[in-house]
Amino acid sequence: MTSTFRESFSVTHGYPVVFTRQALDPANPALRDAVAQAGPGPHKLAAVLDDGPVRAFPGLIGRFKDYVRHHRETIALAGDPLVVRGGEQAKDGMDLVHQVLELIVQRGLCRQSFVAVLGGGAVLDAVGFAAATAHRGVRLIRLPSTTLAQNDAGVGVKNGINWFGRKNLLGAFAPPYAVINDFSLLDGLAPAERRTGLSEAVKVALIRDRAFFERLFQLRHSLGALESNAVEEAVERCAVLHLEHIAGAGDPFELGSSRPLDFGHWSAHALEELSGWTLSHGDAVGVGVALDSVYSHLAGLLAEADLDDILEVLTDMGFALWSPHLDALDVDAALASFREHLGGELALSLITAPGSRVEVDRVDAGLMRRAIARLGQYAAGLGRERACRR
Amino acid sequence: MTSTFRESFSVTHGYPVVFTRQALDPANPALRDAVAQAGPGPHKLAAVLDDGPVRAFPGLIGRFKDYVRHHRETIALAGDPLVVRGGEQAKDGMDLVHQVLELIVQRGLCRQSFVAVLGGGAVLDAVGFAAATAHRGVRLIRLPSTTLAQNDAGVGVKNGINWFGRKNLLGAFAPPYAVINDFSLLDGLAPAERRTGLSEAVKVALIRDRAFFERLFQLRHSLGALESNAVEEAVERCAVLHLEHIAGAGDPFELGSSRPLDFGHWSAHALEELSGWTLSHGDAVGVGVALDSVYSHLAGLLAEADLDDILEVLTDMGFALWSPHLDALDVDAALASFREHLGGELALSLITAPGSRVEVDRVDAGLMRRAIARLGQYAAGLGRERACRR
Repeated sequence: MTSTFRESFSVTHGYPVVFTRQALDPANPALRDAVAQAGPGPHKLAAVLDDGPVRAFPGLIGRFKDYVRHHRETIALAGDPLVVRGGEQAKDGMDLVHQVLELIVQRGLCRQSFVAVLGGGAVLDAVGFAAATAHRGVRLIRLPSTTLAQNDAGVGVKNGINWFGRKNLLGAFAPPYAVINDFSLLDGLAPAERRTGLSEAVKVALIRDRAFFERLFQLRHSLGALESNAVEEAVERCAVLHLEHIAGAGDPFELGSSRPLDFGHWSAHALEELSGWTLSHGDAVGVGVALDSVYSHLAGLLAEADLDDILEVLTDMGFALWSPHLDALDVDAALASFREHLGGELALSLITAPGSRVEVDRVDAGLMRRAIARLGQYAAGLGRERACRR
Repeated sequence: MTSTFRESFSVTHGYPVVFTRQALDPANPALRDAVAQAGPGPHKLAAVLDDGPVRAFPGLIGRFKDYVRHHRETIALAGDPLVVRGGEQAKDGMDLVHQVLELIVQRGLCRQSFVAVLGGGAVLDAVGFAAATAHRGVRLIRLPSTTLAQNDAGVGVKNGINWFGRKNLLGAFAPPYAVINDFSLLDGLAPAERRTGLSEAVKVALIRDRAFFERLFQLRHSLGALESNAVEEAVERCAVLHLEHIAGAGDPFELGSSRPLDFGHWSAHALEELSGWTLSHGDAVGVGVALDSVYSHLAGLLAEADLDDILEVLTDMGFALWSPHLDALDVDAALASFREHLGGELALSLITAPGSRVEVDRVDAGLMRRAIARLGQYAAGLGRERACRR
């Protein structure tokens, strides 16, 4: 009396991630080519610009319009670019999502039109969520404007907004149509903002690529000084490894519990929250990566020499290894919250060497507290050592 | 100076569609088995029930709770089922989505928890959208309660809500975790509601399956009388063909313009709107399928004998071939709106015989107006013929 049918099907996703400079120079074909993937145009495109880069680069709006005018055979700009307020508040609630949906409706965009968004991670996340759900998905081109957005979230397949006081409560897995990482946008960032995303480069090197870690070790002083060549090299390699992980690790839409890209993130999330979001994500990840490296060593997985290299890279890149919020960190509660974030099963990445990862399903909370203490000693010792050198 | 990386990856989707009766009888394993796909439980599940079936079947809430209590090793009910108001208003705006998100947060559901929704198409659509976007997707089990939901939308991969006065402005492609079609729920429907979804069976037969069309022809009087066996057979075959189309036609997430499942739907959408949504979707599809069949004939594609069979099946199944709103239908505007719905390129299915479809990228509006006139004559003639017989 009961019959069951099951069909299965695969959906293939793929998108270009371009690294360039001066993407809005009419001679730079990247943005035009991204749209031209859709065939003969012109294709309707609505633009959303983060007020951060708009303030950092006077004339940005005009340059965007000039670019599109120059490439009018491919792109038809649907009205003036919408300038929106950047920063975490951009993805707090539905306000920006509303604004973008209104834009999409008023300007007659359909599923085969484009939304181009230039901005930091929070703006990309909120605009991406609107684009992913309007008409069940219009095409999204991301132009990430911060180090963190360029080398991490901006090249990935997620979007989201905070709601009911919960981070990323609402969101979707929605691959973009293209990502254009314009390194010249990083010149508009304050030093702390330019640095903060680089902790993700250390993270991805540690879980996937020993050669990249060694390169970061070589470059650590240049990265600490935020020299453009070094920063761009690190951002590009980090972004590519992030992308390779999404495409190659077998679970792009995170249906399972394993999240290697979240190495060091369980404590980072907790520290951000404890700081009332005054500690930036990247700086929190710097501390979190240091902590889980110390834990990996105390658990007998990671050699002391490797640990020293890791802490040295982070320190010389300008990251603090310690946050006073670590004193207030409730290890059990933070791990429980991370377990819920993963979906019920704990799966934590640890490392056995730079580039080599293992996954564990339990954490010894006592050992983790010892790791915190040890990290504190290391950070304090380092402070003394540095003070001596001066 | 510019470098481009491209990775591509595939995501495989698959879900069971079960046809059964008395799904909430503790002896019926369908719902338990659907949850048990996730491995050893118990798995958290929040339930949302449409007040239509709740009113039609006194005791439904209690039966749901009893079912879960009986299968508590597999399912952990997260709080009492939430009963929501059904009908199109359920998907009008964010109200129901808000309610379901609140439920998901308050009851601590994570990405690996379940939402089970029992109801008509609009409730499935709104709850499905909330489930698809909460935590970027919790697992959804649909228990469609109407003919139309069981044989069409409820087995598919879409959800959506109306916003800014636009139908399905917001939504996502999100395959469910399982679909359980409980035929006994159809017993709670008024005759008109039980009938209305059956026009989709005629539609899918015409575009995909001659044998199914012939079977509908055989069953047409039983279907017209809404005999359970005939209705269930038609619903099941329609649902399976719908599912096979999604899985087998190469574009499950509708990235291209072709939408064979929208046969007859361009005018149906327009008629629903012209009627101020008093004409049901299924009844509008009945008229739309009749109209595009007449057009197929006038365009020289479909033999007159086949057309007669199609109109006879629809009529004997109890569908009106004519709607007074056809007099007010602006063919050009309706086709333009449908083109926008598809994403800019017109792609319309016509038929050359029951089960055989061709796609055209233009419609002769003059010929379409003649088809409307001809359909009017046919419907009037049929009225006279029937009157004579009495």
